Amino acid sequence: MLQSSVIEEIKRIVGKEHVYTSLEERICYGYDSTPEAFFPDLVVRPATTEEIQKIVKLANHHLFPIIPRGAGTGLSGGSVPVKGGVVLDLTRMNKILEIDEENLVAVVEPGVITYELQQEVEKRGLFYPPDPASLKTSTIGGNVAECAGGPRAFKYGVTRDYVLGLEVVTPTGELLKVGGKTVKSVTGYDLIRLYTGSEGTLGIITKIILRLLPKPEAKKTLMAVYPSLDDAAHTVTMIIKKGIIPATLELMDDLTIRCVENYLHMGLPLDAEAILIMEVDGPAELVEKQAVQVAELCRENGAREVKIAADEKDRDEIWRARRAVSAAVVQIKPTKISEDIAVPRSQIPKMVRRLKEIAARYDLNLVIFGHAGDGNLHPNILCDQNDAEEMERVRKAIAELFKAAVELGGTLTGEHGIGTMKAPYLKYETGDVGYQVMKAIKKALDPNNILNPGKIFLE
Amino acid sequence: MLQSSVIEEIKRIVGKEHVYTSLEERICYGYDSTPEAFFPDLVVRPATTEEIQKIVKLANHHLFPIIPRGAGTGLSGGSVPVKGGVVLDLTRMNKILEIDEENLVAVVEPGVITYELQQEVEKRGLFYPPDPASLKTSTIGGNVAECAGGPRAFKYGVTRDYVLGLEVVTPTGELLKVGGKTVKSVTGYDLIRLYTGSEGTLGIITKIILRLLPKPEAKKTLMAVYPSLDDAAHTVTMIIKKGIIPATLELMDDLTIRCVENYLHMGLPLDAEAILIMEVDGPAELVEKQAVQVAELCRENGAREVKIAADEKDRDEIWRARRAVSAAVVQIKPTKISEDIAVPRSQIPKMVRRLKEIAARYDLNLVIFGHAGDGNLHPNILCDQNDAEEMERVRKAIAELFKAAVELGGTLTGEHGIGTMKAPYLKYETGDVGYQVMKAIKKALDPNNILNPGKIFLE
Repeated sequence: MLQSSVIEEIKRIVGKEHVYTSLEERICYGYDSTPEAFFPDLVVRPATTEEIQKIVKLANHHLFPIIPRGAGTGLSGGSVPVKGGVVLDLTRMNKILEIDEENLVAVVEPGVITYELQQEVEKRGLFYPPDPASLKTSTIGGNVAECAGGPRAFKYGVTRDYVLGLEVVTPTGELLKVGGKTVKSVTGYDLIRLYTGSEGTLGIITKIILRLLPKPEAKKTLMAVYPSLDDAAHTVTMIIKKGIIPATLELMDDLTIRCVENYLHMGLPLDAEAILIMEVDGPAELVEKQAVQVAELCRENGAREVKIAADEKDRDEIWRARRAVSAAVVQIKPTKISEDIAVPRSQIPKMVRRLKEIAARYDLNLVIFGHAGDGNLHPNILCDQNDAEEMERVRKAIAELFKAAVELGGTLTGEHGIGTMKAPYLKYETGDVGYQVMKAIKKALDPNNILNPGKIFLE
Repeated sequence: MLQSSVIEEIKRIVGKEHVYTSLEERICYGYDSTPEAFFPDLVVRPATTEEIQKIVKLANHHLFPIIPRGAGTGLSGGSVPVKGGVVLDLTRMNKILEIDEENLVAVVEPGVITYELQQEVEKRGLFYPPDPASLKTSTIGGNVAECAGGPRAFKYGVTRDYVLGLEVVTPTGELLKVGGKTVKSVTGYDLIRLYTGSEGTLGIITKIILRLLPKPEAKKTLMAVYPSLDDAAHTVTMIIKKGIIPATLELMDDLTIRCVENYLHMGLPLDAEAILIMEVDGPAELVEKQAVQVAELCRENGAREVKIAADEKDRDEIWRARRAVSAAVVQIKPTKISEDIAVPRSQIPKMVRRLKEIAARYDLNLVIFGHAGDGNLHPNILCDQNDAEEMERVRKAIAELFKAAVELGGTLTGEHGIGTMKAPYLKYETGDVGYQVMKAIKKALDPNNILNPGKIFLE
């Protein structure tokens, strides 16, 4: 617990109305989008970088944990206060500071909501591609801390590909600026990418310089229905071989399709093994031509039915199926454990079979959807967190699915981060040496283990 | 100096024919493409990762420096043995281990020559974009260690954007594998990007997994001649605003044009302030259309003359001018100090003016060319390294040009690295805090300061 003199000092720094001490308020900051919740000792909502520096220096003096937090939409437990301490809510720092149209750069505070930035830049004919599912709620700061992805990552890359510069408060309370408005820099170690995806364990991000692109002129959406999952996966390879890089290449497996159909009654085929939802974007004529090429490739490679959206209404209808997935699958059971493995693209069919075999063996409800272009699959286990026996089977199945992903040359997490949820499995992928290297970096930069303890590493 | 027992031990590890001890042999490994040369105590040419691990463990025991080296084409002194020690020449490890066409991935040893990899993947309709000027000589390992760029970086990014996985021997001789064949991963800290561009100071790269792209179907090259440099720079912005992202957008200033013309006599206009060389690539029809659009934009924005290459011969002729720059400029004076600043694109005209003012003040010959799309300029000072008085002026001018770049929101190095050449100026950009963070990482991972001492940091 924090001494009351420390709480008073924090109130002096940020103003007492921005410090939450009551049980009710603290409960709200104890969880994210993962099942487990924890209790912070205090919630602080700073407005400036200077306030954050002062709080971090205080933390190093009195040795309490600080847990930086955006909107709390994370799927790996990155922002939950597993060791108590002070949750630092950054949502008051929510200004778009600059949209520099000439250099194609935006400068934002961490609490800016991703979708709001996208709307603002699109008004100017520009484009910020990363599109995590939570984008209407999640903050850019959280996106950077977790290196968020999204469906468009296949063509456009993930958050790390758009961060040009950062202002960071270090774990000892110093102010650090890295990068800037230049798209190229190799000055010393790549601290920008070290902080991006470091899940609040190496620094608190207080300002972000983002690269923007010109907004693509047009886009075209397609849906293809497959009797065979292997054919769907093979189509993805054939599209890319043709030299076409769609913005998105989304896959839904048979159970996902059935869940969505039971939920929306939109006429999806209940006997299909897979659906691909694809979007091509770019110059208008090219997009028209590529949509036709993609449709042909789907048919040639075993699709039973291919639909090209003729207009915005058609497009919405196709995406409605994909967007409904999360809501649809929790109709089966109340708790959703959302995983995030990625494998080399060619291993998708093998990985899907391994996942289904694991789920069958542990008698669990599993749906699989995700970003087929990236090999990034989201196996979701539907369960009931009040059923201890079932949750034990879930835990065992999860350990096996991570092992399977790594065995197939893949990774534990494509875009959600390690957080608390995957920390027990980290060494499956990093090995002892990788773990020790990461740990050595953490120790060198945060000697008092102030920032977000209990994340990434099991301690 | 190394003890003879240590040299004997190294000979046992790699075979005595792969250890060079003579003065003549060691001289050859004392320099790169920067002016200063140093003397290694020994040159070792290992063939396997295991041999490297053994040598690094020996180095930690006997405390001698190890300097990893590819082809020695670096422009910042990254591979020169400033503190003596053992140069580890990695060019025997030169196998392309795999080109995985389904996953668009290549697995290579560090000694593979960049151009040879490009030729191999292009035979299969694939594409490895990074194209440093030295690509016919330089190795992929060196490219990764320095995070090399090249003209195509504007559209395609730099080496870091293509590294999916690495095998690394750590500074203490452990074997570490990070990443793999997946395009997305956020497992723990981003060690891939930490090692990429770390200039051999954090690890020795022994295997590289690279992302490939489908090869663009067509390309079209243009050249535009400008009476005004500002108009040339403004054209770059207008092209991007139009939503066109050329593969390359190269700029040559007035003195560069004159040097090339005096060297090649190809009819370049001696009174022009700037030439832009641009290449668009992609699907054939789109490329045709974009080339015409780019040509129009050049004319609308002040180009006096615009040429679209009609065929391969025309294209070669245009690129001949750009490729001749290095050979042409050393006609003025024998020593070329090649710098590599980058500024926000909109600051190019201001930066060019600052550079010319600095050169005039120190009475130096300066030519400026580079990648205008990225804001990455290569100011080259032509001088004579045997003229001590002139070299003193060069040193002062360089310090000023770095300060100017940072003042304009730029960076010391876009694609060459810090090495020894820019180490004295590192803090201009990183500040004290950034310097300390980088230093702390180096110390945590290389406690005995074995790997490439004297680089990046002034010690």
